[in-house]
Amino acid sequence: MADVAPLLTAMPSQSIASAKQSIVVTEAPVSEPAKPSWQSIVAAKQVKVQAAIPDAWRIDPSLLATVDFSLESTQSLDSSSSSILCDSKILTDHELAITEQYSAAALLTKLAAGELTSLEVTVAFSKRAAIAQQLLHCLTEIFFDQAQERARYLDDYLAREGTVLGPLHGLPISLKDSFNVAGIQSTIGYVSFLGHPVPATNGALVGLLLELGAVLYVKTNIPQTLMTADSENNIFGRTRNPRKLNLTAGGSSGGEGALVAFRGSLIGVGTDIAGSIRIPALCCGTYGFKPTTSRVPYSGQATPGLPGLPGVVATAGPLATTMGDLRLFFKSVLDAKPWTVDAQAVAMPFQESKTAEGADSKKPLRIGLMPEDPQIPLHPPVRRALDRAVAALKQAGHEVVPISLDTYTSAMHGCALAFQFFSLDPTHTSFKHIADSGEPMITTVAASMSMTMPDGSPAFGSEAKQQQPGIADLAALNVERAMFQNAWRTVFREQKLDVVLSPGAQHTAPKHDTYGLPAYTVLWNLLDYPACIIPYGKASKELDPTESAAENIGNPKYDAEAFDGAPTAVQVVAPRFEDELCLEVSAQIDAILNGTA
Amino acid sequence: MADVAPLLTAMPSQSIASAKQSIVVTEAPVSEPAKPSWQSIVAAKQVKVQAAIPDAWRIDPSLLATVDFSLESTQSLDSSSSSILCDSKILTDHELAITEQYSAAALLTKLAAGELTSLEVTVAFSKRAAIAQQLLHCLTEIFFDQAQERARYLDDYLAREGTVLGPLHGLPISLKDSFNVAGIQSTIGYVSFLGHPVPATNGALVGLLLELGAVLYVKTNIPQTLMTADSENNIFGRTRNPRKLNLTAGGSSGGEGALVAFRGSLIGVGTDIAGSIRIPALCCGTYGFKPTTSRVPYSGQATPGLPGLPGVVATAGPLATTMGDLRLFFKSVLDAKPWTVDAQAVAMPFQESKTAEGADSKKPLRIGLMPEDPQIPLHPPVRRALDRAVAALKQAGHEVVPISLDTYTSAMHGCALAFQFFSLDPTHTSFKHIADSGEPMITTVAASMSMTMPDGSPAFGSEAKQQQPGIADLAALNVERAMFQNAWRTVFREQKLDVVLSPGAQHTAPKHDTYGLPAYTVLWNLLDYPACIIPYGKASKELDPTESAAENIGNPKYDAEAFDGAPTAVQVVAPRFEDELCLEVSAQIDAILNGTA
Repeated sequence: MADVAPLLTAMPSQSIASAKQSIVVTEAPVSEPAKPSWQSIVAAKQVKVQAAIPDAWRIDPSLLATVDFSLESTQSLDSSSSSILCDSKILTDHELAITEQYSAAALLTKLAAGELTSLEVTVAFSKRAAIAQQLLHCLTEIFFDQAQERARYLDDYLAREGTVLGPLHGLPISLKDSFNVAGIQSTIGYVSFLGHPVPATNGALVGLLLELGAVLYVKTNIPQTLMTADSENNIFGRTRNPRKLNLTAGGSSGGEGALVAFRGSLIGVGTDIAGSIRIPALCCGTYGFKPTTSRVPYSGQATPGLPGLPGVVATAGPLATTMGDLRLFFKSVLDAKPWTVDAQAVAMPFQESKTAEGADSKKPLRIGLMPEDPQIPLHPPVRRALDRAVAALKQAGHEVVPISLDTYTSAMHGCALAFQFFSLDPTHTSFKHIADSGEPMITTVAASMSMTMPDGSPAFGSEAKQQQPGIADLAALNVERAMFQNAWRTVFREQKLDVVLSPGAQHTAPKHDTYGLPAYTVLWNLLDYPACIIPYGKASKELDPTESAAENIGNPKYDAEAFDGAPTAVQVVAPRFEDELCLEVSAQIDAILNGTA
Repeated sequence: MADVAPLLTAMPSQSIASAKQSIVVTEAPVSEPAKPSWQSIVAAKQVKVQAAIPDAWRIDPSLLATVDFSLESTQSLDSSSSSILCDSKILTDHELAITEQYSAAALLTKLAAGELTSLEVTVAFSKRAAIAQQLLHCLTEIFFDQAQERARYLDDYLAREGTVLGPLHGLPISLKDSFNVAGIQSTIGYVSFLGHPVPATNGALVGLLLELGAVLYVKTNIPQTLMTADSENNIFGRTRNPRKLNLTAGGSSGGEGALVAFRGSLIGVGTDIAGSIRIPALCCGTYGFKPTTSRVPYSGQATPGLPGLPGVVATAGPLATTMGDLRLFFKSVLDAKPWTVDAQAVAMPFQESKTAEGADSKKPLRIGLMPEDPQIPLHPPVRRALDRAVAALKQAGHEVVPISLDTYTSAMHGCALAFQFFSLDPTHTSFKHIADSGEPMITTVAASMSMTMPDGSPAFGSEAKQQQPGIADLAALNVERAMFQNAWRTVFREQKLDVVLSPGAQHTAPKHDTYGLPAYTVLWNLLDYPACIIPYGKASKELDPTESAAENIGNPKYDAEAFDGAPTAVQVVAPRFEDELCLEVSAQIDAILNGTA
């Protein structure tokens, strides 16, 4: 979902033209030659993207032809069920082992010990990412050459110095397209941004990851505007879900979801303002962590909307294949004092004491159970995953405490408020960025204009509304937000909760372009609470038949056949700035649910 | 200075009437009997305030008659130079000793050991506060009876339990009028607020202080609107500066400044959005600490302006008679996990590691020296204090590093930006609160309408401005603010600074109603940096003669005779959320400057 959502009231093109003069609208003088079409600009870019994958890493066309890439295809392409990866013989057995047998933490140990070189690890993940790209369109910028150069530098460093450059020494890390990397374009899928200067400097987090020893090799795909849950745009196409091709990969960090699920990356960095890390994680069956804002540095990104827009703001965070790697990323970043490289980052070191408190395994956890909102009833596989999790947690000796549903604990009410914040931009910046090139809106962006709340009201404000929201409206939203924050503080305090267990969404990954309101994720952005997605099981047409529950519930409607096999997940939420506790308790819960240690 | 500044464009009364309907304007139906005049409402309140001081604690009129209370009076009433306190014989020698010979920390030790009872300490400070009130008009709400009841409860508790209720057991603490105390009015000097319901619950910090064992006994005076540096309003009158009656006590926590300087309280709690803690501290010669926002709980206050107004926001913090007591207050509050009682408070425990780092006395400090802004040149006593401090710090082995003046390090530019944030309220809430009762504006509120920046532009926006600022303007201000934050982050990082040494103001406490632009304080609110005021010396007409510097510089103009004897101070500033470091380094600097250990 959106990283900065534009004002989504339907807006005729002339109102874009009349947007505030603070936005520079480039108009070609009459005498100038006709500008190239957006299609030709994109075609030129796509040639470059294609060329970034070496010929030797291309899947044989006859093999590719065995895949049904239609939007209705129920094929799975993830490593466990697809033979294409092996059959393509692009990765050696050693490279397959590197990409499949380790967590990032385990790889780092081998890298530090010199048992693996950064170059072989980098090549292995680059190859796997290249294959993922050919199958899933999960990448945007590809810079394997620079990555190998960097890997060689790190290998030399280790040989020369006898020690690692930093705690992420030699590890390839993928980045959502929005992160600025010096010398690499940051278009975030806007055709108009292809004309922007290439960033000359690294964003704050990017520079920090390099200081920590990481290898950067790819940036990953996102939706046009970054405000939908389908990672499609007119430059890089649509990212597919490796678990099942008929289902969305989620968004806005959808490229990360697909790439990490395919193990083309073990740690990918996304951003989240309404669920953009957690939605792809739950859609693709990976782990995902949305920290409290301003703990992981966020400065230095391509911005899809109006810079400085107040309200609910985005945070950067990891997707990974294990809980431990989420923590590894977070702790590594925090230990590097990110506030010294990003003025917006909070000077709060990693709080070991918080983890010790949460890690006291003798003390039973008190886990609040997020109330299901009747306006967004859970699909049967989601409810079954949650029920099973509750039973397993109780079985393990923990207490599960139901939270009562009221206005300020309601995910749906929180969602409605968050969407009002997202609708504040009077200059319709995102739509202007689209209109600037003449490219069309993608399906989900166009659809968002008529998206409604369960009560029928427009999700992003009304076309009929006479006036733009102003400062007094914003102040009133802030007061309302404080009511939510105080209600949840009270729930945690009075119920003595450690964390809350919540669904991540009403549904699993739904069919393309049908993702519903992100109420169960965006509530935690509104509250600015850290939240982890833990994959847990799969939808099953046998165990979750349509007949077993209200039929066709939800928006999107439940479809047992179509969703069969989709990953299910739970979400673990802790109070604001209790990121360490969230990670620690999530690891405990993951161990119980998934038997990981 | 302002805690929430209203939009200060001159505004005709009809535009108040046409303020948005979100503000409820009470209009009496025609048939209703005439409302009592604001004067009669105030008179009734003043009778109650007077009655709260026991007759036995009233200064003999003949003694009072020895004081020249005119606004031009150059008399001093602080304990060191005034005999009124002793001559009144209201405090016993034991009570004088209690209020004069200890820091709060030392008193707490004696209270915990049972060497002093909370009742005798409470009575001693209540008496002294009562005398301060009669001389300085520093109080608003007075509740000595409840305080004694509370003190008895605490004494009983200690006797019964053999241990203290909390780290502030038995200590009287004064509160700025804005803090809600259950059962006590919170008018913040608006006559219209005398009709508000009395708060039924304690504000978050108030509840926490009670949990920690504090005794509450008085609330303290503030300016009408909380947005000027002269603590005057139509209910409680004007607070006077005990150091010299012709000078302002500062504001908006001016009652605290006067009361603490008079030692009628050892720890007083103020709030600060532009300098409101630090201005009274530097005017009255006390210590004052403005923490980073959201570390000390702020929720549960009477709000002078529009609730939820975005931008630069206020923070709560202490004034005290020693550096150590600032730290005592801060650590006690933080150790009580304030985030569990206030959803806005950051869940960041007191960072012992930060203090250890700062406390390493073997390591020389690197202290940045705030550039003097030629648009707001320092008065001679302020510059002399700063020069002496620099010399003393160098002498002690520390490095002092000049910071170069540019747009984003300039106090004046920061002040101009902050004032744009303060001007965002389209509903002119503060002025509405004044107009509601028919009371007149106080002198400094009226004057603020025509207050100008050094370049002649209106401080609070232009009357001629056609449109109210909107969301896009706010977004642009946020982007500009981020430029300041990044510039200062860069200064700290590149110069490897621990703290910055800055003047607290262009001037010492000036004559009443003439306080200048609070550029050297509000810059740190714009940046959200923690900042300490350390008293250091006094203005001297001999050492700071008008002839020795540019004559009549500044706004207010320097006046060697009028300002002679006014306290001088320095300000110590650390990066955002480095509150512990700020306190630790300030203590080191205080030890060097004032020989305190």
